[in-house]
Amino acid sequence: MTFVISHPMDAPLSALDKGVPAIETNLPLDAVGAQQWRLLKEDLPLPVAVLKEDCLRHNSQWMKSFLADGGARLAPHGKTTMSPGLFDLQLADGAWAITVSTPHQVQVVRRFGYQRIFLANQLIGAKAIDFVISELARDASFEFFFLVDSVDNVKAIAKAARDAKLQRPLEALVEIGYPGGRTGCRSVNEAIDLAHAIHETNGAIVLRGVEGFEGLLKGADNAATLELVSAFLDSIVALARACDEERLYGSETVILSAGGSSFYDIVVEKLGSAALTKQTIILVRSGCYITHDSVLYAKAVQALRERNPALADAHGGLAPALEVWAYIQSRPEPEKAIAGLGKRDISYDDQPIALVWYRPGVDMERPQPLSPDHRVTRLNDQHCHLEIPADSPLKVGDMVGFGVSHPCLTFDKWRVLHVVDHNYQITSSVRTYF
Amino acid sequence: MTFVISHPMDAPLSALDKGVPAIETNLPLDAVGAQQWRLLKEDLPLPVAVLKEDCLRHNSQWMKSFLADGGARLAPHGKTTMSPGLFDLQLADGAWAITVSTPHQVQVVRRFGYQRIFLANQLIGAKAIDFVISELARDASFEFFFLVDSVDNVKAIAKAARDAKLQRPLEALVEIGYPGGRTGCRSVNEAIDLAHAIHETNGAIVLRGVEGFEGLLKGADNAATLELVSAFLDSIVALARACDEERLYGSETVILSAGGSSFYDIVVEKLGSAALTKQTIILVRSGCYITHDSVLYAKAVQALRERNPALADAHGGLAPALEVWAYIQSRPEPEKAIAGLGKRDISYDDQPIALVWYRPGVDMERPQPLSPDHRVTRLNDQHCHLEIPADSPLKVGDMVGFGVSHPCLTFDKWRVLHVVDHNYQITSSVRTYF
Repeated sequence: MTFVISHPMDAPLSALDKGVPAIETNLPLDAVGAQQWRLLKEDLPLPVAVLKEDCLRHNSQWMKSFLADGGARLAPHGKTTMSPGLFDLQLADGAWAITVSTPHQVQVVRRFGYQRIFLANQLIGAKAIDFVISELARDASFEFFFLVDSVDNVKAIAKAARDAKLQRPLEALVEIGYPGGRTGCRSVNEAIDLAHAIHETNGAIVLRGVEGFEGLLKGADNAATLELVSAFLDSIVALARACDEERLYGSETVILSAGGSSFYDIVVEKLGSAALTKQTIILVRSGCYITHDSVLYAKAVQALRERNPALADAHGGLAPALEVWAYIQSRPEPEKAIAGLGKRDISYDDQPIALVWYRPGVDMERPQPLSPDHRVTRLNDQHCHLEIPADSPLKVGDMVGFGVSHPCLTFDKWRVLHVVDHNYQITSSVRTYF
Repeated sequence: MTFVISHPMDAPLSALDKGVPAIETNLPLDAVGAQQWRLLKEDLPLPVAVLKEDCLRHNSQWMKSFLADGGARLAPHGKTTMSPGLFDLQLADGAWAITVSTPHQVQVVRRFGYQRIFLANQLIGAKAIDFVISELARDASFEFFFLVDSVDNVKAIAKAARDAKLQRPLEALVEIGYPGGRTGCRSVNEAIDLAHAIHETNGAIVLRGVEGFEGLLKGADNAATLELVSAFLDSIVALARACDEERLYGSETVILSAGGSSFYDIVVEKLGSAALTKQTIILVRSGCYITHDSVLYAKAVQALRERNPALADAHGGLAPALEVWAYIQSRPEPEKAIAGLGKRDISYDDQPIALVWYRPGVDMERPQPLSPDHRVTRLNDQHCHLEIPADSPLKVGDMVGFGVSHPCLTFDKWRVLHVVDHNYQITSSVRTYF
């Protein structure tokens, strides 16, 4: 039986949710498909965010095949979608854990019952530390991994664990960064000192591995970026080996983890070459593969194609699954149209792409592509400015489907997204928890 | 009795809400104050968004006094906060209606029972039009105003009203814009033609007034901006007079409306000079005054002060009410700190301002100001990069309070915001509906 992309703990749909019709009474998620709502029949208020089901399933399978080929494991970054309905699809396709970024996200995934959680960040703040310790005490099958990059933080967490009389160790990875970067120790030596500080907590915290995030490195061109990424991954490996030599790991299995969304291939190759004396899990944390996108990660795949065409196009490549639809609400000048979506509906680090259009009520069979001279020039909070050719077909009341530039910053603008089939009929809905 | 800033229809707090502790069972909103949670005692997970109660009340009173002085009415833009708890404060202080921007927002404010709604936008899409018509049919005391800028849209709405046999007219304002702008007719003549098209719906839609939005006009400097705004407001007045002369209004009272957040004084003065033959309501729609901010509207008040110091500082001026708090999670380099908040927590058209810091657990009495050489240089999705002096006191685990650059795009990142007293003790919480 096909897995339905939905989560049984999600609250029913409500008219208070953006993208949900003005239903009189709340609608349980498992009753959504039976409504047979169709986007193109105007059954939904716009703007609305939709996930193309065939693309989601394809991308999930693509990652499964890729990981099987490369021998790595995946803890998909939950911060991308914060959607348990999608987490379950990812786990069904073999994900090893769910990665999150913040204490709030830890709280959410625990409430949904996920048992293996990777916090790709420092664990900071009394409330957050207490919550993790109490969950570890309460549930023996809960596995929790987190990053450290400062002795102060190691001491604070170890003290809290001792104060709470926690009967098992917390499991940390030392984070290595790079000068000018974000979090993480700035050198292998600094990171080794920190690993020693973990060792000195006498089992309150154990060292489970080494981590770095390569995703923000940027050189002058693709080749320069690749060089920076390679060198950084080398530093993760060097640190991992040093900790191995100094016998600082507190477990039989060591986790080596990097981001992996844009550089899957290099990450798996480099970290896979560490050759430690312990069993090693190569853990990538890509979050965006599940929906892919039309700009940011589309460029990343293009760069991957340049260096590794076989991989980029293996299993048909990734497909953009996420679209936001809006009406044309004004065409005030021949070369200008205003659509009813804005910064509150779609990511805007780069402008979204106007992909297709559809005129409801006139027997148009399918959405039609928009020529590339339809360009988003500006987003306000609730409006989208489109530069269009004077002979564009678009008029007030037409629907436009937009591709997104960045899934993470689009998902967080929606509490409900609808999963659609190839005819844009809603098959299920998922909630998000940002 | 003091009005509690909260709404009885808001769902209880849940551990799934960002900024809410890992409570085992959901907490009704009217029980929040009794918890005596204190931000500075680390009773809340960070990041968290807080509203300073004394500033909210002060700003609400400031607007009340200002409107009383100028003779205008206020339909505060609900899209800023989308928070019924705050709408009720605004209405308690004399707001005439709630303004919204999208069909979803109409749906939300109707669900909360607000009776006079101003849609400062075109009403587009079959579902949205049907919803408004059915609400007007169902509830004789529901008053709904909306904008039109195209004949196509007028015809679509009139047809839907006739098809539904609606027994009372829809009430539209013609929107006038300007070349290169957003929505709205591009000239007075075009707008008059549209007013005639409304007249020709034979009462399906009546013309209730004239509207324009001056808030996006921008000249080379403050004086040039003011000139553009003045000229644009003149075009609203010219259109209002032309519709009066041609007897196109379908009611005894005419509404003249503009945005009014940055140019309250000019809007009230200009629109107040229209001298129509009908009774006239000058309606401003400022949304941001209720929280004010630390950057965008702080600059607008500075510009107001230059042209009208008495008004800018009347009744003590506006006070920034909205702060987002986060921990320092890493201090990886002497002149760099990383805080645990990002693009998902705070607006980023302009960078937020690091205002104050606090070290929990060391008997520090109050948050202390941060020197201006603490600067936010970059936000990622979940991280904030701070450039700081090497001798900055900040270390891992310290709390920092950030001022926001734009309230609208900060509110939409929170489902729950907490109202705090002058000691940062939580007195109540409000929900948002984006």
